[in-house]
Amino acid sequence: MPRTIPRVDGDRLLRRLLELGRIGAIEGTTGCCRLALTDADRDGRDLVRARMDELGLDVEVDGIGNVVATMPHPSGRAPVMTGSHIDTVATGGRYDGNLGVLAGLEVIETVMTEGIELARPLAVAWFTDEEGARFAPDMLGSLVYVGGMPIEEALQITDRDGASVGAELDRIGYRGTAPIPGRAPHAFVELHIEQGPVLEDAGLRIGAVEGVQGISWTELTLTGRSCHAGTTPMRLRRDPGVVASRVNLFVRELTGRLGGTQVGTCGVIAPTPNLVNVVPSTVTMTVDLRNTDDAVLTDAEDELAEFVARAAADEGVEVAARSLARFAPVEFDRRVVDLVATVADDHGLDHRRMPSGAGHDAQMFARICPTAMIFTPSVDGISHNVDELTHPADLEAGANVLLDVMLRLAETEFA
Amino acid sequence: MPRTIPRVDGDRLLRRLLELGRIGAIEGTTGCCRLALTDADRDGRDLVRARMDELGLDVEVDGIGNVVATMPHPSGRAPVMTGSHIDTVATGGRYDGNLGVLAGLEVIETVMTEGIELARPLAVAWFTDEEGARFAPDMLGSLVYVGGMPIEEALQITDRDGASVGAELDRIGYRGTAPIPGRAPHAFVELHIEQGPVLEDAGLRIGAVEGVQGISWTELTLTGRSCHAGTTPMRLRRDPGVVASRVNLFVRELTGRLGGTQVGTCGVIAPTPNLVNVVPSTVTMTVDLRNTDDAVLTDAEDELAEFVARAAADEGVEVAARSLARFAPVEFDRRVVDLVATVADDHGLDHRRMPSGAGHDAQMFARICPTAMIFTPSVDGISHNVDELTHPADLEAGANVLLDVMLRLAETEFA
Repeated sequence: MPRTIPRVDGDRLLRRLLELGRIGAIEGTTGCCRLALTDADRDGRDLVRARMDELGLDVEVDGIGNVVATMPHPSGRAPVMTGSHIDTVATGGRYDGNLGVLAGLEVIETVMTEGIELARPLAVAWFTDEEGARFAPDMLGSLVYVGGMPIEEALQITDRDGASVGAELDRIGYRGTAPIPGRAPHAFVELHIEQGPVLEDAGLRIGAVEGVQGISWTELTLTGRSCHAGTTPMRLRRDPGVVASRVNLFVRELTGRLGGTQVGTCGVIAPTPNLVNVVPSTVTMTVDLRNTDDAVLTDAEDELAEFVARAAADEGVEVAARSLARFAPVEFDRRVVDLVATVADDHGLDHRRMPSGAGHDAQMFARICPTAMIFTPSVDGISHNVDELTHPADLEAGANVLLDVMLRLAETEFA
Repeated sequence: MPRTIPRVDGDRLLRRLLELGRIGAIEGTTGCCRLALTDADRDGRDLVRARMDELGLDVEVDGIGNVVATMPHPSGRAPVMTGSHIDTVATGGRYDGNLGVLAGLEVIETVMTEGIELARPLAVAWFTDEEGARFAPDMLGSLVYVGGMPIEEALQITDRDGASVGAELDRIGYRGTAPIPGRAPHAFVELHIEQGPVLEDAGLRIGAVEGVQGISWTELTLTGRSCHAGTTPMRLRRDPGVVASRVNLFVRELTGRLGGTQVGTCGVIAPTPNLVNVVPSTVTMTVDLRNTDDAVLTDAEDELAEFVARAAADEGVEVAARSLARFAPVEFDRRVVDLVATVADDHGLDHRRMPSGAGHDAQMFARICPTAMIFTPSVDGISHNVDELTHPADLEAGANVLLDVMLRLAETEFA
């Protein structure tokens, strides 16, 4: 293990983030719009690929448009890989995903410039359509990379306007020939902004991400009876808005009772007709439940279903429930998580072990190799927003942790 | 008082309701769209006016387009007036308003056909823009008739497309010359469908309407902090949706506690951005409170304001409250209400004294003469809907009560 720890060039990293952020920049803001496989995404890809080529990396594009750049290395061994995404949501920031890709490039440039010799190569990748903002599901490129979806199926996915992934890849020149599924790396580690307020709130610099929370999304359609708000006595009402309100407060109460990492949110509440003097006929609402413990998450789902049935019956309201998404929690490799924590300690950076509340490409790699993630703080916890910000000192600290973790992973033989 | 009670022709009344309902009919339904001062409204007006002319009534149109048709009578005394409106909401039915006008015409035709001699004339009127669905406020024509708004102000009111009441009256040929404010009738009584479920639910045929509930509409804008539903721990949330839900349940609880005629409705609940995985930044909601007792209504408003402030503070959410409407309750003339109840008894019709939950033209006349209303049942309490229905037998029974009440009012001298 290297005793003199090499350091990335923080200014160069920040310059490159700003440079990439100018492509698809949203005027009057510091935000970006580079939806997957659009012209702006192509321009962003071309820019990052040019940097990879300048460094003399071995750049491969696969059939779903994932781009993997590997350091030349005599061994031919599986690389230590890092990576993330450069697509954004429609009103995104400069850091979500982009940081992981450009910090990975910065790590490799530093290693090459310093002439550090490693037992195996390093690689940096970006994965297509991580956001899922244009083509569902999200994390599409990494899902296909690890063999979680056949490439033929992925290429046929269409956006709202009917454009397919395959056609759009051809149009922007990013349907490559590298094999799918891709080669399993020796290990995978992803640097990402937290996108939440936990680190900032606790005054910490680094999160050693232990896994990704399980997600359960349920849509409830509550049907009562529309009536006149003035002429209908209370005892004759069947108001689905009252049921929706009870469900919202139950979700809040449930999260408090389950504690731990349990979160719960009613993000959508949509009454019809939504008029001041009409009791709604229907309310559509969503419940987003997440937990790192799948058994607890399942209990939460069961409790919710029971409560909804009871509250609806109390009001004489009909319920139709539909699962919009259900992902089991992902647990990262304990050894890689430990390594992130150790490196943060060595760098004198206050840190904590924590789950990720959002999905990331790393969770796909957890299926095929030892994997973990490094979080760096988000100012005010804001992300998927043009005001997304991570302080330059945190960007640099995160990239240095990534560098050190990758160097150590390159020297680690997993049993 | 006549001992042999004359009877309206129920079939003729129903025929005329269907005839008027064909103008502006909504295809594939039994509903109507005759928004105030549109071509459809003009066609409906022309039809009813032709019937008035055929009967030889003295038809006068005033400056706001109200049409009053009075029986020829040698006395020149102030008439017993009935009336309502023939404009509809965009997805209205055939009965709301129309019944009151056509039943009034039917009453007068019956009295004239039977040659009944009265101490004073009867009159039937319709009032412009009762619904307020095109021009705010609602009950505009009757408000102007009784001197509640200067005609100059009323004529300048515009719809969403910028068309003014004055210009639209000119366009459809209904800006008349009868004086504004209009002459105070001897008494006013309006027959209207209940638009609620109370009569049907209780198995009653007639409501003797004692007054109109006071109305308080409040819009609340609750501002918290938008954040990611996955990455934000519960303790760091400021969720305006949770506050909105607490307010909705408080309103329900409040109505139960206050009892009596108190009703309360949260008809609008509109979170932003209304996405499954985002805690809303703001929720706009409305609270509609109504009571026949203004003091209780004021207490309810005060309790609501206190609760909203407390619930918002608990969650760290900001509140902006705005009054959208505030009308004091209207009390009808006890003598006229008693007369409606007596006549219903005489006709062998089960009835109850009750408030109106909705506003009606009669409440304007309560300012200038002894006034009450007669309610007839609405099937399933449905109104402002293409499925609005009142059974033919109830239409006829209501018209017969109207006839008898008007005959007796014509013989009554109020102190």
